[in-house]
Amino acid sequence: MPADMNALPTFDDSAAPPDLTAFKQAFRRHAAGVVIVTALTPEGTPVGFTATSLASLAAVPPLATFNMARSASSWRAVAETDRVAIHMLGARNRTVAATLAGDNAQRFVGDHWSSGPYGLPVINDVTGVMIGRIIERFPVHNNAVIVVQIEQGELGAEDAPLIYHERAYYTPGRPL
Amino acid sequence: MPADMNALPTFDDSAAPPDLTAFKQAFRRHAAGVVIVTALTPEGTPVGFTATSLASLAAVPPLATFNMARSASSWRAVAETDRVAIHMLGARNRTVAATLAGDNAQRFVGDHWSSGPYGLPVINDVTGVMIGRIIERFPVHNNAVIVVQIEQGELGAEDAPLIYHERAYYTPGRPL
Repeated sequence: MPADMNALPTFDDSAAPPDLTAFKQAFRRHAAGVVIVTALTPEGTPVGFTATSLASLAAVPPLATFNMARSASSWRAVAETDRVAIHMLGARNRTVAATLAGDNAQRFVGDHWSSGPYGLPVINDVTGVMIGRIIERFPVHNNAVIVVQIEQGELGAEDAPLIYHERAYYTPGRPL
Repeated sequence: MPADMNALPTFDDSAAPPDLTAFKQAFRRHAAGVVIVTALTPEGTPVGFTATSLASLAAVPPLATFNMARSASSWRAVAETDRVAIHMLGARNRTVAATLAGDNAQRFVGDHWSSGPYGLPVINDVTGVMIGRIIERFPVHNNAVIVVQIEQGELGAEDAPLIYHERAYYTPGRPL
């Protein structure tokens, strides 16, 4: 389950306040593309997480945003270092999406990644990876909106994009 | 075409600088859910746009973000008023998604919307709508990241969520 969806309580939470109910019911109607964000702690330890919050912000300069909790295991790396790798995932990356949304201690155990630009952990065999510089970290309560200026990137083999909806992974069906 | 994708140049732009090429090629591998954001200008005129940048930020309090250009037709309403309506779209809303991404002057011509809470334009027959208060407008170059605290909402009839990928609309296929 993408990390930034973990915060959502289950649907049948009748004790939830009305604003939270409105939010969680509406987001259950939403679908989102799945990415993996990785970074290095100041000590050089790889960290990362699966996210459904990646969005483009501008093309000139090329800017993207993602959201995270400041309690997340990757927060210190994002707060204290400047570069991140953002990986676009395809259907074939479903397992690694689950790995990077699972137990923190297990996320980089295995041969599913290697060191890339700036020593950043780069996930193998994704459909695309962007390397960027963090230019803003906007705090909001105990969360942050991160703005990344994309500097370089690389494409992998094509695949249907991985989508998350209602706690399950999908790929697009036929075009409407 | 969702408004915030309009800024992306076409793929075969060999004169593009390498950072822009990395950005646009990677985002072509991404898929995103489609929403409509609406607001009222200070004079009470309805404005709005189709967006693929909606993301959840937190559940407690319930916060969502979207991105926009500060040159967009809806910017003044978002900058100067406090409430927005965020509509989750299903397959049946494909036509209105195109309408709200088209000619500004035509977006509210027709009977596809009505006045809702705070007088906000609410699009008919969507799968869900959230009404929220803008709590942050973070400027980044000529763009902005908007943070909305969700206050209330309503669900419509269920439908497959509308997805945008490679300049076309989709719904999810079978779960993986």
